[in-house]
Amino acid sequence: MGVVGFRGYSGAELVRLLTRHPGVEIFLLEHRADAEAETVGPLGRKPHKTIPATPEAIKLEKLDLVFFATPAEVSMDLARGVLETGAKVIDLSGAFRLRDAETHSRWYKQRHTAPDLLAEAAYGLPEFHRDKIRGARLVANPGCYPTAANLAIRPLIDAQVVDRSRGIICDAKSGVSGAGRKASLKTSFCEVAGNFSAYGILDHRHVPEVLQNSGLGERELTFTAHLLPIERGILETIYIRTQGVEKAVDLLAIYEDFYAEEPFIRLYAPGKVPDLRAIEYTNYCDIGFVFDAESQRAIVVVAEDNLVKGAAGQAVQNMNLLLGYPETEALL
Amino acid sequence: MGVVGFRGYSGAELVRLLTRHPGVEIFLLEHRADAEAETVGPLGRKPHKTIPATPEAIKLEKLDLVFFATPAEVSMDLARGVLETGAKVIDLSGAFRLRDAETHSRWYKQRHTAPDLLAEAAYGLPEFHRDKIRGARLVANPGCYPTAANLAIRPLIDAQVVDRSRGIICDAKSGVSGAGRKASLKTSFCEVAGNFSAYGILDHRHVPEVLQNSGLGERELTFTAHLLPIERGILETIYIRTQGVEKAVDLLAIYEDFYAEEPFIRLYAPGKVPDLRAIEYTNYCDIGFVFDAESQRAIVVVAEDNLVKGAAGQAVQNMNLLLGYPETEALL
Amino acid sequence: MGVVGFRGYSGAELVRLLTRHPGVEIFLLEHRADAEAETVGPLGRKPHKTIPATPEAIKLEKLDLVFFATPAEVSMDLARGVLETGAKVIDLSGAFRLRDAETHSRWYKQRHTAPDLLAEAAYGLPEFHRDKIRGARLVANPGCYPTAANLAIRPLIDAQVVDRSRGIICDAKSGVSGAGRKASLKTSFCEVAGNFSAYGILDHRHVPEVLQNSGLGERELTFTAHLLPIERGILETIYIRTQGVEKAVDLLAIYEDFYAEEPFIRLYAPGKVPDLRAIEYTNYCDIGFVFDAESQRAIVVVAEDNLVKGAAGQAVQNMNLLLGYPETEALL
Amino acid sequence: MGVVGFRGYSGAELVRLLTRHPGVEIFLLEHRADAEAETVGPLGRKPHKTIPATPEAIKLEKLDLVFFATPAEVSMDLARGVLETGAKVIDLSGAFRLRDAETHSRWYKQRHTAPDLLAEAAYGLPEFHRDKIRGARLVANPGCYPTAANLAIRPLIDAQVVDRSRGIICDAKSGVSGAGRKASLKTSFCEVAGNFSAYGILDHRHVPEVLQNSGLGERELTFTAHLLPIERGILETIYIRTQGVEKAVDLLAIYEDFYAEEPFIRLYAPGKVPDLRAIEYTNYCDIGFVFDAESQRAIVVVAEDNLVKGAAGQAVQNMNLLLGYPETEALL
Repeated sequence: MGVVGFRGYSGAELVRLLTRHPGVEIFLLEHRADAEAETVGPLGRKPHKTIPATPEAIKLEKLDLVFFATPAEVSMDLARGVLETGAKVIDLSGAFRLRDAETHSRWYKQRHTAPDLLAEAAYGLPEFHRDKIRGARLVANPGCYPTAANLAIRPLIDAQVVDRSRGIICDAKSGVSGAGRKASLKTSFCEVAGNFSAYGILDHRHVPEVLQNSGLGERELTFTAHLLPIERGILETIYIRTQGVEKAVDLLAIYEDFYAEEPFIRLYAPGKVPDLRAIEYTNYCDIGFVFDAESQRAIVVVAEDNLVKGAAGQAVQNMNLLLGYPETEALL
Repeated sequence: MGVVGFRGYSGAELVRLLTRHPGVEIFLLEHRADAEAETVGPLGRKPHKTIPATPEAIKLEKLDLVFFATPAEVSMDLARGVLETGAKVIDLSGAFRLRDAETHSRWYKQRHTAPDLLAEAAYGLPEFHRDKIRGARLVANPGCYPTAANLAIRPLIDAQVVDRSRGIICDAKSGVSGAGRKASLKTSFCEVAGNFSAYGILDHRHVPEVLQNSGLGERELTFTAHLLPIERGILETIYIRTQGVEKAVDLLAIYEDFYAEEPFIRLYAPGKVPDLRAIEYTNYCDIGFVFDAESQRAIVVVAEDNLVKGAAGQAVQNMNLLLGYPETEALL
Repeated sequence: MGVVGFRGYSGAELVRLLTRHPGVEIFLLEHRADAEAETVGPLGRKPHKTIPATPEAIKLEKLDLVFFATPAEVSMDLARGVLETGAKVIDLSGAFRLRDAETHSRWYKQRHTAPDLLAEAAYGLPEFHRDKIRGARLVANPGCYPTAANLAIRPLIDAQVVDRSRGIICDAKSGVSGAGRKASLKTSFCEVAGNFSAYGILDHRHVPEVLQNSGLGERELTFTAHLLPIERGILETIYIRTQGVEKAVDLLAIYEDFYAEEPFIRLYAPGKVPDLRAIEYTNYCDIGFVFDAESQRAIVVVAEDNLVKGAAGQAVQNMNLLLGYPETEALL
Repeated sequence: MGVVGFRGYSGAELVRLLTRHPGVEIFLLEHRADAEAETVGPLGRKPHKTIPATPEAIKLEKLDLVFFATPAEVSMDLARGVLETGAKVIDLSGAFRLRDAETHSRWYKQRHTAPDLLAEAAYGLPEFHRDKIRGARLVANPGCYPTAANLAIRPLIDAQVVDRSRGIICDAKSGVSGAGRKASLKTSFCEVAGNFSAYGILDHRHVPEVLQNSGLGERELTFTAHLLPIERGILETIYIRTQGVEKAVDLLAIYEDFYAEEPFIRLYAPGKVPDLRAIEYTNYCDIGFVFDAESQRAIVVVAEDNLVKGAAGQAVQNMNLLLGYPETEALL
C-alpha cells in the first residue's frame, strides 16, 4: 500500500493512521524530484520504505492500492499510470470528485487532463455510496467541507422536510491544515494567529460537490468558508427552513433512520450540538441541531476533523471497503 | 472620572484607553469587599488612585462621570446612587439597554431592580443616537454582538432593500474576552484552545438589542453565537436577501450615505471583506460584502474589536460626547 | 481495569489510550459525590461502565488494576483500601513518588497520610526501574517534568562526564494541561493565550523527584518551570558542563548505550534537537544536544508529551509491565 | 519622516506608533520594484503618502529622518545614499550594530558592504548610550534578544557581583514576529501552533551584540533561542552565579541605582517576575529575579515586547532623542 504526497498534512495523517492498521505495509512514494534528501528526525527510525512514485516501482513492489495526497494536477497526471499497474487508487484531491469535466474546469479553473476517468470514479462517501465504492478501482475521496455538509443536509432533503424555496445557508469554519502545507503568507503564523476571516464567499470550489451529492440546485445553497486560527477541525452551522416538522424529535428520527447502522456518525439530543473537541483526532462526524417548530427554523451544527473524516480517515475507511477489511479498522 | 470593575477585561481596556486621553484623571472605584489587597506588578507604578465605589467617595472626589464595567446586577444596584451625586453614568453591562423591564427579565432571566431608569437611558450607539447621548445622564453602552449587527443591518433596512419575509441570518463569532474574566471551566485554556463551538442558538440575550435598534421582528432574525479560540475580536457573517438592488455598488452607496461622516465606520469595495486583523485594538467597525444580483443574495461581513468598539472604546466615544471632547479623542 | 479521575486531562488521556488496548475492559470509577449526572455528548455512546470508586465495587467487578488520576490527597486516601482488594495501583499523582514522608511534606506542603506505603511503592520510570515495577503492587507514576529531566540527565551522570561542581540548569517549559482541569484564573484562556511565564523558580515540587532519580544534590540542580500557551507538551533545555568529553559523538554514544533497547527513547544526531511536534500524542521521549568541546558545554534538549510519556502513556507502559502485556501495547 | 519596509511586522508597528506622535508626518518609502500595487483594506483611508525609497524622493520631501525596517543587505545598500541627503537614519536591521566588519561577516555570514559607516553608528540602546545617540546621524537599533539580555545583565556586571568564571546562561524565548514577515514553512501556522522549539543554540547572530554591550567574553555567555507559538513578546530566563551578595534586596538596589531615571525599565520585588502580558504592546522592559543567597544563584527574568522595546518602540525612542522630542512621546 503506497502514499504519494506523504509530506503534506493529509499524507502524514494517512501514514499515522495506517501505522495502526494491522493489515497493511506502508510504502512512501516519492513524486518530487526536488525532495529534500534528509529530514530532521530521530536516528534509526525509518519504519517505511521510500520508492519512486512510478508505475514500475509500484509494480515491482506489487502494491494493491495507492493513495494520492497530492494537488489535483498531480493526481490527474499520475492516475492512469498507477491504475494500469492493477493497483487501486484513492485520490484525496479534487481531481475526480465531479462527474463532468466542464464542471471541474469551471470551479477548479483548470482543464481536466483525464476526463475519461471521471465516469468510473466512485465518490468516496461511504454513508452514501458504500456499494459503489466496494466495486471501484478509482475512489475520489470527498472534500473536507462537503463531507460535513452532505452528511448534515441530505437526510433532510431525502425526507422532504426542507423548504427549498427558502434556500439553505452553510456557514463553514475550518482549521488551517485544510489549506495544505505549502508556505504562503496567508497561512503564516502571524497572519492567522488571533485572526479569523471569511473567504470563498459564493465561489468556493467545494460547492459543486455539495450540490452533486445533496440534490440541491446552485441557487438553493449559500456557502461561506472561514479560516479558524487552529490546526484542525471543521464546524459548519447550517440554516434550514423546514416544512411540516412538528417536533424536534421528528427531525432527530430522520437522522437516526438514515444513519442507523453507521459507525462514524454520532447524533445529539435536540438542543445539543457538537464542538470541535468532540471529534478532533477521530473519524467521527457529529451532528446536532436546535429546532424552533413555530418558525420551522432548524440550525444544524456538524463537526468533523478535517484531516480525519474530512480526508485521511475517510480515505482509510474507503481502503477498508476496497480491500475487504472491517470498515472501522485503524479508525476507532 | 471613575471606573468600577477595573479588573475585568472591559474595565482594564477602559483604563488603557483613558490613559491616553489628555482630558481625564482616572480613579479606580473598588466595589468588592473581598478584593485582593495586592497585585503582582512592577514596583512604584501606581498611576491611578483607588477609592471605594460609594456615592460619598464619588462626591468627595467630584467625579463628573463613572463607568460601570460590572455585571448587570451590580450596575442596577449602583446606578441610582451614583447618578444622585450628579455624576453621569456609562454602563457597559446589559442592565439599561432594553427599553422595558419585561423584555429585560425575559432575556436576562432576572428581575430589573431599577426599572424607572430604563426610560431615560440613552442607547450608546453614537452612529444611531448621537444627539440623545449628548443630552443624557445615563448611557447604556451597547453589547458587543449588537454593535456589529446593528451597524451592518440597519442601513439596508432603512433603505428598504431587504426582503424581510426571507429573514436575516447573523452567524456571529467572538473571542473569549467577551465572556468576562471570571474563572470557569468553559473558558479555561485547555477547553478553548484548538476548539470552536456554537452557543446561544436562537436564545442569546443580545438578540433583543438587535431587534430594538434595527427594527426587525423576532422571527425575522436568526442569531447564532460562536466562541473563537482567540482573546479579542468579533466577526459576523450576515445573510440577507435583498430586493430591487441592481448592482453591488448600489448597496455600497447605501452604506456610504448612511455613514458619510462617521469616523469609526470603514467600508470595503464590493467583493472585499474585513478580517479581525483589520480592526484589532482599534475602535473601527469594518463592513464589507459580496453580492449576487441574480439571486439578490448579499453576504455582509462585519468586524470589530469586542473590547474596543464592542465595549470600552465605544464607552470612551460616548464619554467624549457626554463631556464635550472631540468624539475621536484617545481612540485613533 | 479502572480509572479514578477520568474527567481530568490525564484521566481522559488514559481512557483514550486504553480504548486501543486489546487486553483490557475499562471501568470509570466515580469518586466525587457531586459529579454532574449527565455529560453533553453524542447519544447512545456509552462504551464504559461507571461504578463507585469503593473497595466494594472494585471487588465486585474483580478489577485487577486501578489507575488514580487524582490529586495527591485523594490518592493517599484511596490507596490502602484499593490495594486491600487485591488490585494493583498505578498512581499518577505525587503521593507516592518520594521515598520518605518528610521530603514529601516539605515539597508538597501537606502531611503524608499513608507513609507506610512509600517504602513499597515502585517509581514508575521503566527505563530506570523496570524490574522493580514488574514485581510491585503500587506504582508511583513519575511527574511530567522529572520524566524528561531524569531521562536526559542520568545517563551522563552515570557515565561520570558531568562536572557537577558547575551545577546543572534545567529550563523547563510545559503546556497548560499539566496544571490539571480545575477552573482557575491562572489557567483561563485570556490569561494564558499569547502569554508566557516562569513559575516555581527554585521551588518546584518536582525538584526532589529529579534529585532522587538522577543522583544530583539539591544545590547541583537549578530548575525553572514555564507555562507555554499550548495544551500539551514539555520541552526542557538543560545546560551541562561536561568533563573529559572529546567529541559530540562520544556523548551520543553514552545515550545510545544507556537506551540501546528502549522502545520509547529516541536520539538525534549531534547538533539536532527535537521540538514538541516530534512527540505530541506519542509516548516517545526525544533527546538531542549541541556540544562545544572546547568549552565542554552541552546543551541537551529533551521533549515529551506531558499527557502521554509524562502521565497516561507512561502509566499504560507501567500497566503493561505489571500485567504482563508487551510493553508497547496501545502505545505505538 | 520616512519608513522603508513598512509592510513588515516591525515597519507596520513603527507606522502604528508614529501615528500617535503629534510631531511627525509619515511617508511610506517603497523600495521594492515588485510591490503589490493594491492592498486589501477599507476604502478611502490612505493617511500616509507613499514615495520611492530614493535619495531624490527623500530630498524632495525634505525628510529629516528615515527608518530602515529592512533586511541587513538592504540597509547596507541604502544607508549611504540616504545619509547624503542630510536625513538621519535609524536602522532596525543588524547591519550597523557590530563595531567591526569581520565580526559582522562571521555571525551574519555575509560581507559588510558599508564598513566605513560602522565606526560612526551609535548603538541605539538609550539606557546605555543616550548621549552618543543624541549626536549621531546613524543609529543602529538593537536586536530584540540583546535589548532584553543587556538590560538584565549589564547592571550586575558593572556592579561586579557576577562570578564570571561560572558563566551566564540566557535561555531566551520569542514570539514568531521576530522572524519577519516572509512566508516560510518554518513560520507557517500549522508548523508553529501548538509547537515549541529551540534554535540558534551557541550560534545565534544576536550573541555578539550581547557580548559587545555587556562586557562578557564569548565563552562566558551561553545563549539559546526558542520559538514561542505566539505573535509577540520575548522572555529571557537568565542564570547567574553572583559573588558577595548578601540579600535579595541588595541585588534589587543595584538595578534601582542603574535605572533610577529610566522611564521604560520596570523592576519587581525580589521573588516576583514579569510575564509577557505585563509588557505586550508597551515599550517597557520588565526585570524581576529570584535569589538564593546560600548558593549565590540569581535567576533573572526579563520581558519585553519584541516589536516595541525590541524594535519599533525603541526606534521611536531613538528618534525622540535624535530630533529633540520628549523621550517618551508616543510611547506611553
